[in-house]
Amino acid sequence: MQQLSEAVVSTRFVLVETSHPGNIGAAARALKTMGLRELYLVRPRFFPDPRASARASGADDLLSRAVVCDSLAEALAGAGLVFGTSARERSLRWPEVAPRQCAEQIAAAAVAGASSAAAAGPPAALVFGRERTGLDNDELALCQRMLRIPANPEYSSLNLAAAVQLLAYELRVAGLAMAPGPDCAPADGDDGDPLAGHDDVARLHDHLRETLIELEFLDPGNPRQLMRRLQRLFNRAQLRESELNILRGVLGAAQRAVRRAATRRDG
Amino acid sequence: MQQLSEAVVSTRFVLVETSHPGNIGAAARALKTMGLRELYLVRPRFFPDPRASARASGADDLLSRAVVCDSLAEALAGAGLVFGTSARERSLRWPEVAPRQCAEQIAAAAVAGASSAAAAGPPAALVFGRERTGLDNDELALCQRMLRIPANPEYSSLNLAAAVQLLAYELRVAGLAMAPGPDCAPADGDDGDPLAGHDDVARLHDHLRETLIELEFLDPGNPRQLMRRLQRLFNRAQLRESELNILRGVLGAAQRAVRRAATRRDG
Repeated sequence: MQQLSEAVVSTRFVLVETSHPGNIGAAARALKTMGLRELYLVRPRFFPDPRASARASGADDLLSRAVVCDSLAEALAGAGLVFGTSARERSLRWPEVAPRQCAEQIAAAAVAGASSAAAAGPPAALVFGRERTGLDNDELALCQRMLRIPANPEYSSLNLAAAVQLLAYELRVAGLAMAPGPDCAPADGDDGDPLAGHDDVARLHDHLRETLIELEFLDPGNPRQLMRRLQRLFNRAQLRESELNILRGVLGAAQRAVRRAATRRDG
Repeated sequence: MQQLSEAVVSTRFVLVETSHPGNIGAAARALKTMGLRELYLVRPRFFPDPRASARASGADDLLSRAVVCDSLAEALAGAGLVFGTSARERSLRWPEVAPRQCAEQIAAAAVAGASSAAAAGPPAALVFGRERTGLDNDELALCQRMLRIPANPEYSSLNLAAAVQLLAYELRVAGLAMAPGPDCAPADGDDGDPLAGHDDVARLHDHLRETLIELEFLDPGNPRQLMRRLQRLFNRAQLRESELNILRGVLGAAQRAVRRAATRRDG
C-alpha cells in the first residue's frame, strides 16, 4: 500500500477564529479521511465542545491532539511555506496559487526533503480564515502565498470544513502520485481473476461466429464488419477468464436452442 | 470569465436515502459554490426540512428545485453515464475510476457533444449512497462505473456533503480546463459513435436477463451473481450505441430460436 510521506502528513491545517465548533469537528474528520492529522486552532470560539466531537465522527483523536494557539504567528512558528486560503477575489492581489499547485508544491518539497537524506524540512501550513470574514490583512501578511479555491464567482461561500476537505484531498492525491510507489496499482478490479489469454479469446471469436451463423444473425458470406465490431468490443472489455467461460456457456445454450428447433423441424 | 458548459452544469448529483437533512443542505451549498445545480434526492428521510435550509446557507434555490424521486431508477431516467461513488473497497470489484478521471470524462464528453453541433447529450449522473451503508448491490448495478474517492484506508468515512464537494470541485476544475477548447479531441476512438446512455444499457440488461432465462442458462430464482458479472463486463466495455444495437439483435435472434423450438415441441 502506498504511503504519504511524513512531510506531507505533517502539513499544518490552521483554522483562525472558527465560530462554529461543528466546523472544527468536520475539519478533523476531513483531515483524517485523507490520512492527515495536524490541526491547529487559533482562538476558536468554542473548543473543546461536544458539537465538535459530534461532527468529528470518529476523528476525535485529531481533536484531542489539536494545538490551540493565541495567535496565528504562534500557530505558524516553525512552519515552512505558508498558504492563506480564500475563495473570493481580493482587491490587493497576492501571488495566487490553485489548490492543485499548492498540493504539488508541498508534495514535491517533501520528495526533495526525503531525497536529501536530511530530516524532512519544516512543515507547510495552510491557513483558513473565519467563516464569514476570512483572513484579515495582517494575517494574510504572514502567508507567503494566496491559495484561491476556484469557485462560482456569484456564490463563492464554501463551508470551512468543505474547503479543508478539498485541500486535504488534493494533498493526498499529490502525495500518492509522488510516493515512491514500489508496486503500481493493478489494472481495474480483477479480484484475482486473470485476463483471458489470446488462444481462449480466439476460440471465443470462432464460437461466436459459428453461433451467429446458426442463429441466422450473421451472413456467412459477409461476416467481416459485424465480427470486427464485436471483437473490438470484447478486446476493449479485457475479458477475464471467468467472463469468457460465461460467454461461451451462453453461446452453447443458444446453439442447443437452435439445434433443438432444427431437430423438431426435421424430425 | 470562463463558463462551464451546459453539459457539465447539467450533471446530476443523486443522493440516495439521505438520513440527515443537514447533509442535503450542505450538498446543495457545495454544488452551488462550484456552479452546479442538479440535485436529485431518492427517498430522503426528511425533506424539505429546516435543517436542510439552514445548512444550505444561501443555496436554497437548489433545494427548492431539487427533484425528489421514489427510486434510483427514476432519478437516473434519461441520464447518460452513471457513476456510483464509494470511499470503501468492494469485494466484487467494479471498474473503478478516480474523481479526477470521472470529471475529465464528463467534461470531455461535454466538449464532444458541443462540437457536434447537436444539443448536449444526456447528462451524466453521480450517485451517492446512504451515510452509513452507501449503495447496495442492486443500486450499484445501475451504475456503469464505480467512482472511488482515494481515502485513508484506516478511516475512509467521508461526510456525504464532503464527498459531493470533492466531486463538484473536480468537475468545475475539469470543466474550466476544457472550457475554451472547441477543438479538444473526444475520448477514446469512438469514430463518432456515441456511448450508449443509461436507459439503453438498462434495457439491454433486462433483455439479456430475459434471454438467458429463456435459454435456461440463468436460474430465475437466483440470477444475481451471473447477471452482475455480465453487467460489470458490459460496463467496463463502455458500449457504443451501435454495439448495443448489435447485442440486442443477437439476443433477439436467440429468443426467436428458443421460441421456434418451443413452438415445434408444442405444435
